Amino acid sequence: MKKDFDLLSLGEILLRLSPPNNERIVRGETFQKQVGGAELNVVSGVSLLGLRTGIISKLPDNALGTYAKNRVRFCGVSDDYLVYDEDPDARLGIYYYENGAYPRKPSVVYDRRHASFCKITVEDLPEDMFASTRCFHTSGITLALSENTRENAVEMIKKFKENGAIISFDVNFRGNLWTGEEAKECIEKILPYVDIFFCSEETAKLTFLKEGDLHSVMKSFTQEYPISIVASTQRVVHSPKVHTFGSVIYNAKEDKFYEEEPYHNIEVVDRIGSGDAYISGALYGLLAHDFDCQRALEYGNATSAVKNTIPGDLPSCGLNEIDRIIKNHKNTGIQSEMDR
Amino acid sequence: MKKDFDLLSLGEILLRLSPPNNERIVRGETFQKQVGGAELNVVSGVSLLGLRTGIISKLPDNALGTYAKNRVRFCGVSDDYLVYDEDPDARLGIYYYENGAYPRKPSVVYDRRHASFCKITVEDLPEDMFASTRCFHTSGITLALSENTRENAVEMIKKFKENGAIISFDVNFRGNLWTGEEAKECIEKILPYVDIFFCSEETAKLTFLKEGDLHSVMKSFTQEYPISIVASTQRVVHSPKVHTFGSVIYNAKEDKFYEEEPYHNIEVVDRIGSGDAYISGALYGLLAHDFDCQRALEYGNATSAVKNTIPGDLPSCGLNEIDRIIKNHKNTGIQSEMDR
Amino acid sequence: MKKDFDLLSLGEILLRLSPPNNERIVRGETFQKQVGGAELNVVSGVSLLGLRTGIISKLPDNALGTYAKNRVRFCGVSDDYLVYDEDPDARLGIYYYENGAYPRKPSVVYDRRHASFCKITVEDLPEDMFASTRCFHTSGITLALSENTRENAVEMIKKFKENGAIISFDVNFRGNLWTGEEAKECIEKILPYVDIFFCSEETAKLTFLKEGDLHSVMKSFTQEYPISIVASTQRVVHSPKVHTFGSVIYNAKEDKFYEEEPYHNIEVVDRIGSGDAYISGALYGLLAHDFDCQRALEYGNATSAVKNTIPGDLPSCGLNEIDRIIKNHKNTGIQSEMDR
Amino acid sequence: MKKDFDLLSLGEILLRLSPPNNERIVRGETFQKQVGGAELNVVSGVSLLGLRTGIISKLPDNALGTYAKNRVRFCGVSDDYLVYDEDPDARLGIYYYENGAYPRKPSVVYDRRHASFCKITVEDLPEDMFASTRCFHTSGITLALSENTRENAVEMIKKFKENGAIISFDVNFRGNLWTGEEAKECIEKILPYVDIFFCSEETAKLTFLKEGDLHSVMKSFTQEYPISIVASTQRVVHSPKVHTFGSVIYNAKEDKFYEEEPYHNIEVVDRIGSGDAYISGALYGLLAHDFDCQRALEYGNATSAVKNTIPGDLPSCGLNEIDRIIKNHKNTGIQSEMDR
Amino acid sequence: MKKDFDLLSLGEILLRLSPPNNERIVRGETFQKQVGGAELNVVSGVSLLGLRTGIISKLPDNALGTYAKNRVRFCGVSDDYLVYDEDPDARLGIYYYENGAYPRKPSVVYDRRHASFCKITVEDLPEDMFASTRCFHTSGITLALSENTRENAVEMIKKFKENGAIISFDVNFRGNLWTGEEAKECIEKILPYVDIFFCSEETAKLTFLKEGDLHSVMKSFTQEYPISIVASTQRVVHSPKVHTFGSVIYNAKEDKFYEEEPYHNIEVVDRIGSGDAYISGALYGLLAHDFDCQRALEYGNATSAVKNTIPGDLPSCGLNEIDRIIKNHKNTGIQSEMDR
Amino acid sequence: MKKDFDLLSLGEILLRLSPPNNERIVRGETFQKQVGGAELNVVSGVSLLGLRTGIISKLPDNALGTYAKNRVRFCGVSDDYLVYDEDPDARLGIYYYENGAYPRKPSVVYDRRHASFCKITVEDLPEDMFASTRCFHTSGITLALSENTRENAVEMIKKFKENGAIISFDVNFRGNLWTGEEAKECIEKILPYVDIFFCSEETAKLTFLKEGDLHSVMKSFTQEYPISIVASTQRVVHSPKVHTFGSVIYNAKEDKFYEEEPYHNIEVVDRIGSGDAYISGALYGLLAHDFDCQRALEYGNATSAVKNTIPGDLPSCGLNEIDRIIKNHKNTGIQSEMDR
Repeated sequence: MKKDFDLLSLGEILLRLSPPNNERIVRGETFQKQVGGAELNVVSGVSLLGLRTGIISKLPDNALGTYAKNRVRFCGVSDDYLVYDEDPDARLGIYYYENGAYPRKPSVVYDRRHASFCKITVEDLPEDMFASTRCFHTSGITLALSENTRENAVEMIKKFKENGAIISFDVNFRGNLWTGEEAKECIEKILPYVDIFFCSEETAKLTFLKEGDLHSVMKSFTQEYPISIVASTQRVVHSPKVHTFGSVIYNAKEDKFYEEEPYHNIEVVDRIGSGDAYISGALYGLLAHDFDCQRALEYGNATSAVKNTIPGDLPSCGLNEIDRIIKNHKNTGIQSEMDR
Repeated sequence: MKKDFDLLSLGEILLRLSPPNNERIVRGETFQKQVGGAELNVVSGVSLLGLRTGIISKLPDNALGTYAKNRVRFCGVSDDYLVYDEDPDARLGIYYYENGAYPRKPSVVYDRRHASFCKITVEDLPEDMFASTRCFHTSGITLALSENTRENAVEMIKKFKENGAIISFDVNFRGNLWTGEEAKECIEKILPYVDIFFCSEETAKLTFLKEGDLHSVMKSFTQEYPISIVASTQRVVHSPKVHTFGSVIYNAKEDKFYEEEPYHNIEVVDRIGSGDAYISGALYGLLAHDFDCQRALEYGNATSAVKNTIPGDLPSCGLNEIDRIIKNHKNTGIQSEMDR
Repeated sequence: MKKDFDLLSLGEILLRLSPPNNERIVRGETFQKQVGGAELNVVSGVSLLGLRTGIISKLPDNALGTYAKNRVRFCGVSDDYLVYDEDPDARLGIYYYENGAYPRKPSVVYDRRHASFCKITVEDLPEDMFASTRCFHTSGITLALSENTRENAVEMIKKFKENGAIISFDVNFRGNLWTGEEAKECIEKILPYVDIFFCSEETAKLTFLKEGDLHSVMKSFTQEYPISIVASTQRVVHSPKVHTFGSVIYNAKEDKFYEEEPYHNIEVVDRIGSGDAYISGALYGLLAHDFDCQRALEYGNATSAVKNTIPGDLPSCGLNEIDRIIKNHKNTGIQSEMDR
Repeated sequence: MKKDFDLLSLGEILLRLSPPNNERIVRGETFQKQVGGAELNVVSGVSLLGLRTGIISKLPDNALGTYAKNRVRFCGVSDDYLVYDEDPDARLGIYYYENGAYPRKPSVVYDRRHASFCKITVEDLPEDMFASTRCFHTSGITLALSENTRENAVEMIKKFKENGAIISFDVNFRGNLWTGEEAKECIEKILPYVDIFFCSEETAKLTFLKEGDLHSVMKSFTQEYPISIVASTQRVVHSPKVHTFGSVIYNAKEDKFYEEEPYHNIEVVDRIGSGDAYISGALYGLLAHDFDCQRALEYGNATSAVKNTIPGDLPSCGLNEIDRIIKNHKNTGIQSEMDR
Repeated sequence: MKKDFDLLSLGEILLRLSPPNNERIVRGETFQKQVGGAELNVVSGVSLLGLRTGIISKLPDNALGTYAKNRVRFCGVSDDYLVYDEDPDARLGIYYYENGAYPRKPSVVYDRRHASFCKITVEDLPEDMFASTRCFHTSGITLALSENTRENAVEMIKKFKENGAIISFDVNFRGNLWTGEEAKECIEKILPYVDIFFCSEETAKLTFLKEGDLHSVMKSFTQEYPISIVASTQRVVHSPKVHTFGSVIYNAKEDKFYEEEPYHNIEVVDRIGSGDAYISGALYGLLAHDFDCQRALEYGNATSAVKNTIPGDLPSCGLNEIDRIIKNHKNTGIQSEMDR
Repeated sequence: MKKDFDLLSLGEILLRLSPPNNERIVRGETFQKQVGGAELNVVSGVSLLGLRTGIISKLPDNALGTYAKNRVRFCGVSDDYLVYDEDPDARLGIYYYENGAYPRKPSVVYDRRHASFCKITVEDLPEDMFASTRCFHTSGITLALSENTRENAVEMIKKFKENGAIISFDVNFRGNLWTGEEAKECIEKILPYVDIFFCSEETAKLTFLKEGDLHSVMKSFTQEYPISIVASTQRVVHSPKVHTFGSVIYNAKEDKFYEEEPYHNIEVVDRIGSGDAYISGALYGLLAHDFDCQRALEYGNATSAVKNTIPGDLPSCGLNEIDRIIKNHKNTGIQSEMDR
């Protein structure tokens, strides 16, 4: 059935403009043109792995909106719940991204204020959407963007929950959008609805004022709220071009932590979206494999690690490729050097 | 002296993003990255021809603002009167431009609302600026962008006038920024200060409700207001890739019209900014040659015609090149095929 | 409903490789990478205009097949009826295209033999597909590619017809795939099933051995077969970069011919697919407007004319844009030079 | 036999740097990188048509020299008579080329002084080279470049002549290299050795001070010198992007002029080297077809006309393609629009 | 003499298409266009080092074939023994290559079936070719491609051997072309003719079922067959972007193993063809230096190591550059950072 | 005041042409087009950090000269003291640069002889220039280029000194321009005028025949000449893509050495100009902070380290960015991974 999704997500779609290779924003004559956005990155990753997903968003009713819609479709994500802003001031939010190389850090300039997405409301969407998906995901960015997105996102979370959807939430704290205090206050209001919770150790401590080791921090969320699963990524940034990536997942019902050897010395091509790709993999593992946290861990780590090697925000690996990467990651024997 | 300019101009600097060649905004993977803006186009053209010019504008205090500043300098335009917006919502206005090919028209998508330029005020600039230039130029776009730019532009016109500057004004009517009625009301208030007036026949008729042939329309402005010179361009669009361009200039003191054979069948590469280039040439002719309208006509037409062959908003021809084009335009004998 | 399409089409999807600009196949260091194919071009055009379409095809189960699938989705065409070839010799057919400039003609090199599409069978597709669409379209290319595609295409035509679909067929004769005689024999067997028939005057005469003027030729098809509508395009190639395009449509029930002023002196950027774009527009006009042949004519001509200005096989214009082009085409008064 | 050439030519090989599309030398961030040079252009064209050719030249013994050698080979021209300059001041001459679009003319900046080619001497080459070819070709550019190239070129002409080679010479007058007077004086000294003489009407009149109509001018050369064949090209430059091209050939022995309908309204992509391509075609016609001037005319015109559509100095069409273009040029009936 | 080659090689020439930088096959809008093929890679490397080489292959008689021929010439490899396939189904084999970055492996998609090369026969080539070279080289890929290439390659080996050529053979086992068993059976039939044998330790063990340490494995081949020299490369793949490369050569007559310090932590740009480049260097060392295995070792290792830093299949280093790299490799003192 | 500069520098401006990414000079179809030159690199870096600078140089009066002037302005460097060469042999010097990857070293081919810069004389410049700046900088390259530049540079040094400017000098020894002996003799004549002296340990030893450890070598210069500050950079080249960079500064008045932890494992994108960038940072530190050598050290090291990550000769970092890099370099705690 057309309205049957494994995953729907609410989030802003941004135009991403980046100078090629190691060129700078302040110079040069071309920008690479892509789309991105935390929630779109998540659903496009899940879609590539084989589940049916859609993005809930609002786009300007102009050529840029059409461009964004086309890219969404390219990824195999449904555009059924894209709505369009016909106001004369309709606009697509933008961010400019510049690659880093030690000692130059990657850098981002945002130009996302007044974007059409900030006007999205529950009323823009059809009522039956809320009953059309197994899982709903959104992130702290959507909450932080504007008063309006915050209110409507909260209302959507409630409506999806009422209609039986699993609620997935990624804190994704951004200090340039709101303060830690604002974030804490707002997110604590929605945690009672959340089933799957993504939060880094650093955010847990700085924003939610948790103390103690990572395991006890993760567990504490499930003790205070009816959260089933908490996942926390662990990235070590050796340099802008070399990262190590792993994660920990806690399953409250089993009271069990899942961990594996991280991916060491990833050859980073484009780091943006690798956190979102982790969520893709983890949600895929949970939704496709009956909440098997071992699968969530393996798919999450592999999907994130390999995203770092792909230009742009959006992942681009299908299930076969991820399975092969997981197998290689576990393999300690001789490996082929190339996929032929 | 550093503060001695031949021409200062007030106007918005926009980031221009355009797909390469005949590619479309709704597809493709790169944008060409340029800057433009009616008034910047004018001063950069005058600067290339050899006079000292500067642009008065407000830019965001981020990498995009730095990029715009660098491009301004590249053209030889002074950045002394660029001021910076450090607000968190500071932004550089953008427009997206797509080339046409018959029957596909060129098309533009604007994303210039809330730009830092809209916040510019007289107080942002040093008082001695108003005494630093022989001529001040601005256009109807600056008036139309926002209440604030309108008020401050009018105040600047008055202050420059008080300080002895010649005032040049280009109507440049844009129906997507204001109505004809609004434009008429506002512009009629500033015409008493204007010395050099650029207005197309169509705008004169539709917006200022003039009637009669072009000559009598042009003359009427100088009869109602203390305008010295009126210039009107005449473009025939055979197709997006073929235009014919000429103009008429009226000198009120001499009560004389200046005209010449238009440039026929221009091979259009990028039409944007060719109207502004006309003003460059005309102002150069007037300012460098003691208000010689014949020179203004010839420099205006040549500078505009050749701008159509240059990618981007900004002109790129020096005086030697324009002189050569004028000479070839008048030459009816054998011409070399190439400049070696 | 997910299985409810306005148009399904059976055809090969090809990888198209073309040197940039006026570069040659025998030199240079890059190829532009696109997909194309007569039937895909048709459905993607119809999809852009707002109807629900899908493509029936067979792709290799490798990265090239995934690329083709992604591009299909980008155009808004359903990939529900794409099937995959897992044989070790699975391959995506290719064609190389080089632009022309007088006196150099555009040129094409085909490398489409042994493509996975040639193995497609009725059994690859679900039975309910045949009841899922209002209209089914295919072309003579599909019939000509191989014995197998011919047999299966004929069978599909019959099954769609049985299930109540309108049958649309484009002769699209290609002398490098079969002889005129083979084409005539094969196509005459399917004409009893065809409702909408696309055939050029030249093909009607050379292949079907028709005689007389275009009108009587077109009419004769409807007299011999139960065809409702016959459409014939008329292209004048002034040079590789300048074409004139128009068409004639005959409605048998009304016994009426539809014609309009052609689009003169189109500024051709990429001619490939403009014939298919005509079919897009015509089918859209018929399917969306209750078989209104005037609409079919106008949409067909406009969609084809503008396709010539778009790089690649695939059209890229939405309904608003085509409506604007039709309006401009009919407008004999002043026109804006640009879409802002 | 390896030393058996149909054509050897002496001339400078230049690095050509040109901004892409319509970009300018004074801006932009890339140059297209090619090689060219009048005599290389000639031999590479003849080689593409199927004869064995070689270029006699001197290159710097560095990476640029290697690049030039690789490009020479790419064209199928022998590098047997390339010699290398190992001096620390060895350099490859350069020219910068910018495309035109009316009213902007194409323009060239030369940086060819002090090039290694200017040091070439007869002693650099093996003695048996002079007996290894049926025809030797050079141009006025080689004579004009330096005192040294002039002396050595004249000596080579004599040595090739002594060894039985046909001598072909193209005046190719360049006012930026020498005066008309210098050219006249020098060239008149070598005309006694020349068999095939290429000279435009304009040069004949301005430089050689000929008077009268073209036919009598051409004939007069054969009356004053033992020249067998005189060829004169006729180009009409409608605009930088539209040319018409034809030629006249005079065969002294037959006392007959050969002419045909010119190629009208050529869609010019890159005009450079089209004069040299004419010589390629004409020499091919003469050398491959026993001095048949009708063939020379047809091959010359077609090869030149089509070169205008090819980016870069060097031609790129094989014999089949040229034969097809000649056939189309003569064909007044229906033509296929595309080569498939 | 024209027919005197140091090395001739029989092998398929493939079109290689690869997305730029780290882009993916499944996305993006351009392919880099190159040629490659194990045997072509070998001869082009040897040619760059200064010996006369040629490639024996069969190409389609179309623009792609011409492109391949031009690239062969660009490398300085003779095209005297390229033959052309004029069948309508003539095609150039293709492979698609995508770069890797840990944890994403490089990947290859082949589309080489039905290529014109598979039709090559001994009869296509002139009889005197077999007496025209000092050495003949081919690889297991040529044997594996098709029944026909296998038979003809074996026949050519015998004919070259009869005519006194040294026979060089590279096992180059590819599991996607044939099984180890097939390979073993076929290759053992030709080993009696082989003088120089390239085989990795892994292949020796898995395919030829050898046991023991590398030295004894290598030696065993020379004991079973009249092989003079066995070379075995040793690559350590730290990641797709970092390799270490060395080799061992065994000289049977001297009963001596040659080894040197490997090149550590090569900064890999494009790994494809580095194995073939090893063979280039080794054969050059042997053929140019009277079978001096120390030279073969040093040239082989250096040529392979540096190939990893060059985009595309084909090597691009001349003798001076390789000599400098060898010198630097042996140098333990201060080194200049740059070649100026 | 317009003529008030913090820093003026005398040096050649070169056109830099480099193949993209890891492509080679001997192949490929494009060059990146940039400008560079040791002294221009220095002043553009100082200008970016916020001081007023200008370059004294001579350019050809053609499109290449205009291009160079435009780039100078783009960097915010004054073009007031650029003079133009109108001779027919005027030329812009060129250098070709190719990136390295181990074991391939970066390489440079120079084509700078006969450049217009070599003709510059004191008389070309206005007399009041010598009183217009706080500091004058030049390098050994300017001295080495030609007899004429040597004489005029020495005269300028004296005139600037007389007018009260601080004299900064960078030895920048280039063995391909002069011998160590020539350099020593010439430079020792100007050392009596130098205040700030940049010299590497290696050059001090090989060229000035100093002995002992670095500290005593540096100090010895200040003992023999009235030099106030000596700076020496220390680069470790792990591979063409990985460097470590630090420096030592000696303040003679304080008799104190300044050192800090070097930047380890810089991810090198383009090494050219990083030595000049060091001088930018060091001079900025000294000139903007009252000769504070600690600041000079920190700005020098940071500006150089980050330049390695920027394509082209010219630095591109403003003061904020450098301050952030210095802060991160000193920071031993948690760091943000990205600048947002």
